[in-house]
Amino acid sequence: MIKVVKIGGNVIDSEEALSSFVSDFASIEGPKVLVHGGGKLATRLAERLDIPTTMIDGRRVTDSDTLDVVTMVYAGLVNKRIVAMLQSLGCNAIGLSGADGGAVRATRRAANPIDFGFVGDISVEGVDAAFIRNLIEQGIVPVFCSIMHDGKGQLLNCNADSVASAVAVGLATECDTELLFCFEKRGVMRDVDDDTSVIANINREGYKTLLAEGVVNKGMIPKIDGAFRALECGVKVVTIKHSAELADSSAGTKIEL
Amino acid sequence: MIKVVKIGGNVIDSEEALSSFVSDFASIEGPKVLVHGGGKLATRLAERLDIPTTMIDGRRVTDSDTLDVVTMVYAGLVNKRIVAMLQSLGCNAIGLSGADGGAVRATRRAANPIDFGFVGDISVEGVDAAFIRNLIEQGIVPVFCSIMHDGKGQLLNCNADSVASAVAVGLATECDTELLFCFEKRGVMRDVDDDTSVIANINREGYKTLLAEGVVNKGMIPKIDGAFRALECGVKVVTIKHSAELADSSAGTKIEL
Repeated sequence: MIKVVKIGGNVIDSEEALSSFVSDFASIEGPKVLVHGGGKLATRLAERLDIPTTMIDGRRVTDSDTLDVVTMVYAGLVNKRIVAMLQSLGCNAIGLSGADGGAVRATRRAANPIDFGFVGDISVEGVDAAFIRNLIEQGIVPVFCSIMHDGKGQLLNCNADSVASAVAVGLATECDTELLFCFEKRGVMRDVDDDTSVIANINREGYKTLLAEGVVNKGMIPKIDGAFRALECGVKVVTIKHSAELADSSAGTKIEL
Repeated sequence: MIKVVKIGGNVIDSEEALSSFVSDFASIEGPKVLVHGGGKLATRLAERLDIPTTMIDGRRVTDSDTLDVVTMVYAGLVNKRIVAMLQSLGCNAIGLSGADGGAVRATRRAANPIDFGFVGDISVEGVDAAFIRNLIEQGIVPVFCSIMHDGKGQLLNCNADSVASAVAVGLATECDTELLFCFEKRGVMRDVDDDTSVIANINREGYKTLLAEGVVNKGMIPKIDGAFRALECGVKVVTIKHSAELADSSAGTKIEL
């Protein structure tokens, strides 16, 4: 089973949480892939450079200056820090943007209805699963940032959840694959303010009920929808969990068909 | 013959020169590796962030903030731009820092006599030639920036000429290797103001004479000394040439034992 683990920005923003997470990730046995977001570092760097940050529906509008900022922060600073940390723990990591080895190709999003600039969308056709699998078979651990390319020389800023899903689905065509979304919550909660209210399993039927009851909050809906799409495309199991509970296989919410 | 090509900062600073160089590099037949410097982009970014730049003997003093800047610019912006450009030209490039795949390990320079901060030196023992050769054998073109790691989680800023030399020497233990230093001059010149005064060949004997005559200028001495060291360690030929003349195998100055 290949584990594709995605960590969100909140983990990256805390040096302590990141260091602890990376150590847990390094300890996972078996083949694995890490996909990371960028956190607030990009927004902070943009501020210091007087580059305005515009977010629409939680996605960064990426003009040319902003693309440089996210490329520097995600593909440079964050990616290489994580890779160096993993290497120091005996985990043979390799940092990758989508351009590296032609690993993942994205398509620039149409300027209508909203022009997000240099933002890309990924489909599984854009994933060179053979290349990624080949690295894994050599004992190498791919560490993806969310900067992809269009194959025509243009870098594109993509959503790290989507990168993780696409990579997992790409790998699932030939190997059993598990997708884990790690973030600052313990999973999908019945009550967001109650840490003990984690829902252990959600299937299609249960999801409909949760939606009807209004239990699942707005921010979680795209994550769960994405999880079901990944399952439909062959990923065996998708887990949504706290980054500090990576090692605990019973923790978090398992999404299953 | 594996070609290890190093391009200097002046090429990277010019969008036109870089694009033209990358296109020439993509056209080179056979196995190859690219090593790039960072140019003035890092200094400019540091300025915009009010991080003071201190250079001693042409080397950047790298405190923690400066290390972040060079990691962002060299490993992020410049590296991924070059990789995306190469991919668009059908050249299957992969961008690497020294940490990626554990490719190149450096040692932090002692704080005496000058404390350069997070600056590393590379010896050929730090190069994982088998990993690099394995990529090359798969038709992949490694593109190195000059950010290395110490294997203990610390990134280190290194000299790109030294990275190129160490990689070439590492590869030379098993394959015929050529090292090409490309920059903004046509090679080693008898008269720096006369573009037609390129010295076609320099051997040990000839170098002594040139030094005695005062023909070789200060900036060129470490390059030529490095070239001789690389030759002594098994690199077949070292060429110093203009970045615009990459494709012309008769151009530039060939250093030979």
